[in-house]
Order: sequence, then structure tokens, then C-alpha cells
Amino acid sequence: MQKITMTSIGIIHSPYKQVKDMPIQGKFKPEVKAYLELKDGYAPGLKDLDGFSHAIIIYYFHKSKKEGVTGKPFLEDKEHGIFAIRSPHRPNHIGLSVVKIETIEENKLHFTEVDILDQTPVLDVKPYIKYFDNREKAISGWIDKHFKS
Amino acid sequence: MQKITMTSIGIIHSPYKQVKDMPIQGKFKPEVKAYLELKDGYAPGLKDLDGFSHAIIIYYFHKSKKEGVTGKPFLEDKEHGIFAIRSPHRPNHIGLSVVKIETIEENKLHFTEVDILDQTPVLDVKPYIKYFDNREKAISGWIDKHFKS
Repeated sequence: MQKITMTSIGIIHSPYKQVKDMPIQGKFKPEVKAYLELKDGYAPGLKDLDGFSHAIIIYYFHKSKKEGVTGKPFLEDKEHGIFAIRSPHRPNHIGLSVVKIETIEENKLHFTEVDILDQTPVLDVKPYIKYFDNREKAISGWIDKHFKS
Repeated sequence: MQKITMTSIGIIHSPYKQVKDMPIQGKFKPEVKAYLELKDGYAPGLKDLDGFSHAIIIYYFHKSKKEGVTGKPFLEDKEHGIFAIRSPHRPNHIGLSVVKIETIEENKLHFTEVDILDQTPVLDVKPYIKYFDNREKAISGWIDKHFKS
């Protein structure tokens, strides 16, 4: 098995201390604020990110101690393949959130649309590029029925 | 520095053997086909992913041998912070692509909208959930001027 070693580039500071406190997605509680504090040396990496409205934060689900190939999502009590849900209990424990950039100062990226736990180690930050990342007509499988109004 | 060890869950099979052959984003060459072949044991993780039109593939930029906090994107000859561009030469070398799901059979996820190199090790697959991942009004910083028609 091929092993890949990564380093945390920074830490999330968030009002959410436990999974049970968090909304299913940060977009649904837009007033909540958090920030990413980058470790020494990474601050120049944020240059020009302030021109974007949103960023993709990729992080490590540090609170998850189990790993499954199937699992149950928050939204329903039914087992799905782990690659069809966003559960933390997944191979490699990688989390991904689209967040709204508020301000950037030195090594701190302040954001809203928060769904990340406090003290989460961060692996990468990418600009959200609508030409690449937006799929307005996407079909969202078992999720759609939970959001249809 | 906190180290995190990951394992490749599978490999991409793609017609793109070199970076120079690839489009800037897969969406722009929709006829090109590729597939992810999962390693033994991960196939049940794909259950129910066939109900989604798109997936997010997270992978390791295995061809990149350098790592910067700033870099130049394909689209322009100007230095930006590494977290404001999608260059492979970044801390932790994590890549992210939104792809269009075509078919799923056993341990193989066939997809289009390809911008991933052949033999790329894959770290995670997530369902693209429009309620979470879509930001139709996103502002895309230095990128916008390259796509305005």
C-alpha cells in the first residue's frame, strides 16, 4: 500500500467544539464566524486570495477514530457507500468545506459558512473558482429528497 | 510539525499522460473519458454514488516534485499566493477535481470532465452535493478576467 505523508499547514479556530453543535452545512448558519490560522511560513500563500468570495478548505477529521467503507449520514438512518456520503469516518479522514471569505490578515483567513470543528488541522486551501467548481444542474442522489421544498 | 499518513485508495486511468496534454479544466473537453480503479476492499464505498451526477475526486499530485508558498498559474505569467491558485506545486500536493459520473461497475468509477493525469493516486471520493458545494454567485478573483466573454 502506497503511503503518503502530509503536514498540517494550520489550525481552525471555530465556535463549534463538538460535532453535535454543528449545522449540517455552514451555509445554513451564515452568522457564525471562524478563522484559519496558518503556521509560520505559509502566510504568503494567501496573497490574492482576498479577490475571491469563497475558498475550499481541505482538512483532517481529527476527531474521527473509525474508518468504514459504508456509513450512515446525519440526514438519514440508512447505510450508504462512504464515497456517496460526507461522513468523517472515511478512508484517510479528509474533510472538505466551501467557506465564505470575510477578511485576510497576515496568517489568518477569517471566514463564515462554517461547518468545521475547533482545532481541526488544515491540509490545503484552494480558491473557489466558479468556472471549475460550480455545477448548478447537479443531481444529488439520496440527498435531493431532503432538500426539495 | 504534525504529520498525517494517508494511503492511496486507488488509481486514475486517464488518456492524459503529461501535464502539457491536459485542458485547464476537464469541463472544457467533455468527450474525454477516464476511470478510477479502487483497490481491494473499497468497492462497497461506491454504493449509491450512481445516484449523483458529479463527484469530487481528491488526489495526490504525484508528478510534482516542488512545493512553494507562491506560484504561477497556467492562465497567466504572474505570481500569486499558492492558496489563490490551483497549481500542483503546493504544500501537501493535494489535487481536487469535480468530475461527471458516467457509470459505476464494481470497483471502477467511469467519469468525464477529466483533468487528472494517468496513474494519479487517489485519496478520497465525495458526492458533489449542490446544496453544499454550489456557489453560483462566487467571485473568482484574478481568474474572472480570463473567463469574461
